[in-house]
Amino acid sequence: MTASSSATGIRPIIWADDHLKLIDQRVLPNEERWVDCRSAAEVADAIHGMAVRGAPAIGIAAAYGLVLDALAGRDYEAADRVLMESRPTAVNLRWALLRMRELKSQGADAKALLAEAIRIHEEDLAQNLAMGEAGAALLPPNAVVITHCNTGALATGGHGTALGVIRSAWARGRLSQVYNGETRPWLQGARLTAWELLYEKIPARLIADGAAAHLMQREKIDWVIVGADRIAVNGDTANKIGTYALAVAARHHGVKFMVVAPSGTFDLNCPNGAAIPIEERPPNELTEFRGSRIAPEAMQAWNPVFDVTPASLIDAIVCERGVIEQPTEQKIRALLG
Amino acid sequence: MTASSSATGIRPIIWADDHLKLIDQRVLPNEERWVDCRSAAEVADAIHGMAVRGAPAIGIAAAYGLVLDALAGRDYEAADRVLMESRPTAVNLRWALLRMRELKSQGADAKALLAEAIRIHEEDLAQNLAMGEAGAALLPPNAVVITHCNTGALATGGHGTALGVIRSAWARGRLSQVYNGETRPWLQGARLTAWELLYEKIPARLIADGAAAHLMQREKIDWVIVGADRIAVNGDTANKIGTYALAVAARHHGVKFMVVAPSGTFDLNCPNGAAIPIEERPPNELTEFRGSRIAPEAMQAWNPVFDVTPASLIDAIVCERGVIEQPTEQKIRALLG
Repeated sequence: MTASSSATGIRPIIWADDHLKLIDQRVLPNEERWVDCRSAAEVADAIHGMAVRGAPAIGIAAAYGLVLDALAGRDYEAADRVLMESRPTAVNLRWALLRMRELKSQGADAKALLAEAIRIHEEDLAQNLAMGEAGAALLPPNAVVITHCNTGALATGGHGTALGVIRSAWARGRLSQVYNGETRPWLQGARLTAWELLYEKIPARLIADGAAAHLMQREKIDWVIVGADRIAVNGDTANKIGTYALAVAARHHGVKFMVVAPSGTFDLNCPNGAAIPIEERPPNELTEFRGSRIAPEAMQAWNPVFDVTPASLIDAIVCERGVIEQPTEQKIRALLG
Repeated sequence: MTASSSATGIRPIIWADDHLKLIDQRVLPNEERWVDCRSAAEVADAIHGMAVRGAPAIGIAAAYGLVLDALAGRDYEAADRVLMESRPTAVNLRWALLRMRELKSQGADAKALLAEAIRIHEEDLAQNLAMGEAGAALLPPNAVVITHCNTGALATGGHGTALGVIRSAWARGRLSQVYNGETRPWLQGARLTAWELLYEKIPARLIADGAAAHLMQREKIDWVIVGADRIAVNGDTANKIGTYALAVAARHHGVKFMVVAPSGTFDLNCPNGAAIPIEERPPNELTEFRGSRIAPEAMQAWNPVFDVTPASLIDAIVCERGVIEQPTEQKIRALLG
């Protein structure tokens, strides 16, 4: 057991009276190091540098970032701007900042902003628990599932989205095996999801991302369960690179595909996946590993870190407000509108 | 330019009068280290330990391994056995050993065995040049292709199989861009294919394996071009893990799929892919990298290093004897039988 875990589960974001503590997800599971943030700029650095990652966790951290500058009497607009620009793809970041801005525009002081950030944090956990139950109910008994990246307590306010469904299914005794993709290039699956699955004692095996299709060919897999960084109004879903490949392989093998995300992940102003900006990160995330060179120095690389899965390949989107099967714009607007 | 490359290209396997020199592919491209083998057992270790890898290269190295023991007057059967057991999936290994055994059974001495090993080596290069031309002829002008793992000069007697087609296409001016998957867990794409592509000055970009489907969705890709470790008589093809995922994604996007392999890769006694043994390697190839821990120590992993692509997903098998489009047992037997 570590300081970041407790009877109520793993807690990666801690408000510590006058500053924000973020567990540094770049060095987990080898090391438990905390990043102390005392300004919005420091939180933005932590988001951009991926000390904190996961769409809901980014939104929560950003809300606290605004509070830090408000408490110190620094300019609200500047804080909002630096946070908004820290990562382009996840919409929860924008959603949380807009929610805080709304309150600020009504004259909220730093204390009221802090209360709102805590509310965003607590609501996220509650939403995840609700999604966990709703998603688990879709699984058959003794389900075998594949997940990707990290969508657990580390990526959220607690419990997790896709990994929250896996946690809830395990607690209900509905799960027999999880396979988690290592998730190149950042290896969130190998590092973070593995750490959370071990913590929960859920039977799990790590696989190379490229092995998932082979696994579907060899063994009966019931569901692929993933999170989301942004969902367009037609149901097209941006998530970690490799998700779309899993969706294509799942359809080919008759494996069902579930996206688990709170309502803050939907972008009702975004018509479809083509309109979602896809972050590309530096080539050295592929050509090096922990400072050790993998590819020759002159090698070029293309490093998009998200991809878009079209709604047509998604069997269910699980949201805290309900489950949308075979998502369409009409169904999404009916649930969220 | 390095000692392993020359005017006639990269040479990873060198017969040095009384011993065999293998470039250590585990440390490329960072370091050019040579493994000196003086017995069949040392060659078997180099194969099992992956100092030499790539189905045709393994076959060539194994043939020289027999010669080493024959020259030293050691037991032929024992040498044959230790080499046969060094890797289970690639059939070229078996093919080369059976060819040598045939000659041995006719009373060949060490000198005659050496001449045969050299013939196997030189024939492989000639076959690759022929396949390169035949495969390149299938590409449209300004082709954009994806390849996987390393199937180049390093994996063969020279020029390469799938990468040989890419080399030939580039020489003919038919190629505009190559994307090469990094190929987890051994990163042969990132390390070895990148090194060869840079050597040839072919425009290339490295991608995470999980990004290939996203790439096919975003950009017009003409062909996926891969090698093979064993081809069943019905055309089902075993190749590096991740190949099948590429084939599924290629079919989904209308991208053509080419397998390039010499006739020694066909196993006419193997009815279909289900009968091909798939090597599983230790979990620490996924959970660690160069001795540095990635996943928590207790994490389990499933590490199959090959997968099987069914013939139905293959548009063309390019062999030195000709091109088989939409492969079937009948077409394969007609060409090879």
